[in-house]
Amino acid sequence: MTVKEIKVYQDLMGANEEWAAKTRDLLRTRSLLMLNLIGSPGSGKTTLLENSVNYLRERHPFAVLEGDVETTNDAERLHALDIPVSQLLSGGSCHLEAKLVHHALVDLPLDTVEVVFVENVGNMVCPAEFDIGETAKVAVLSVTEGEDKPLKYPLLFREAKAAVLSKQDLLPHLDFDVEACRRNIREVNGNIPIFDVASATGEGIPAWGEWVAGQVKRTMNDE
Amino acid sequence: MTVKEIKVYQDLMGANEEWAAKTRDLLRTRSLLMLNLIGSPGSGKTTLLENSVNYLRERHPFAVLEGDVETTNDAERLHALDIPVSQLLSGGSCHLEAKLVHHALVDLPLDTVEVVFVENVGNMVCPAEFDIGETAKVAVLSVTEGEDKPLKYPLLFREAKAAVLSKQDLLPHLDFDVEACRRNIREVNGNIPIFDVASATGEGIPAWGEWVAGQVKRTMNDE
Repeated sequence: MTVKEIKVYQDLMGANEEWAAKTRDLLRTRSLLMLNLIGSPGSGKTTLLENSVNYLRERHPFAVLEGDVETTNDAERLHALDIPVSQLLSGGSCHLEAKLVHHALVDLPLDTVEVVFVENVGNMVCPAEFDIGETAKVAVLSVTEGEDKPLKYPLLFREAKAAVLSKQDLLPHLDFDVEACRRNIREVNGNIPIFDVASATGEGIPAWGEWVAGQVKRTMNDE
Repeated sequence: MTVKEIKVYQDLMGANEEWAAKTRDLLRTRSLLMLNLIGSPGSGKTTLLENSVNYLRERHPFAVLEGDVETTNDAERLHALDIPVSQLLSGGSCHLEAKLVHHALVDLPLDTVEVVFVENVGNMVCPAEFDIGETAKVAVLSVTEGEDKPLKYPLLFREAKAAVLSKQDLLPHLDFDVEACRRNIREVNGNIPIFDVASATGEGIPAWGEWVAGQVKRTMNDE
């Protein structure tokens, strides 16, 4: 597989709010949905996107901006599935900056997509604090991480418009209480939908995909 | 279980290097080993400490400084095992600051311990950048996180003096290549020992405990 087509962006700095506002304007003008996926390293963000390809590609074509401190591994995974993708390297930073996101966004083939997923740097703390102009943040938590994480890292779950509980195929081998985790999410954010996803099998993807589709419709009607 | 005895520290700021130097002086004066455990949320840092109790308590008694953005859950787990522990709340910050660590450290019963473990805020990026005056950093990576993480978050593995690959009891249920992960760690840091630990069973703890014991001896001989 050749990955020469993957653009790599890094080291752009600037007033974050200003660039976030530019991105919001662009999304509004083009009726585009942009979802900012935030979770720990290895929480299953890239796999969620891979699993979403079959469900979403025909219905609501999407592009991906892959954020990482280093490497282009994740962009390569989406590229292999023929999803338009660019790699954003944070250059050691623990979150994506709005300027870097904006520059990568305008270079995507936006005429051909309805959704842009941003996979933020693997980190439950800092990315939740930074506005990148996204339509909504989505929290991704793997069931291997422990059901107390929404209480320990509440900002992410407070800011998120949806939460994905990933890797549920591993539940039989874990001491993880899904109901307690749901209660903990509800404690910091009473209203968000919570999607149960078995990353290995793709179980639960249709419900997640329907929610994304609903957000696309909302975005188009907002115009 | 009562947890009234757990002290809670938060919101101390100051020149990080200065406080890190104070901590280093204190550790030297008292021949204390301080290990700074760094890894993602849910990577198994607290469980590693729980599992270390039986091996280390008689040989090299230890205390713990538990770092979290919010909650005292982790401190309660160690407290339940009669380990001297204080909770450090970072107040939304993605890493522990040296001043907060120093203030909590001097209040521990240092006459009764040889080792202080600091469990940093769950995050592979920021804690690796901040000196808290520790003797050494230790990277904790769960095998549920993916074998590419040492390449994606290289600073932690470059800074660490040892790495723990935790949750290996889950390997039969995962698509995780331990050898590839070891190669990736070696690629960023050729020399550090890598400990295989099955967190659910405590398998691998003796090798890890022996390494800690070796570091204690080194610290005492440095005096």
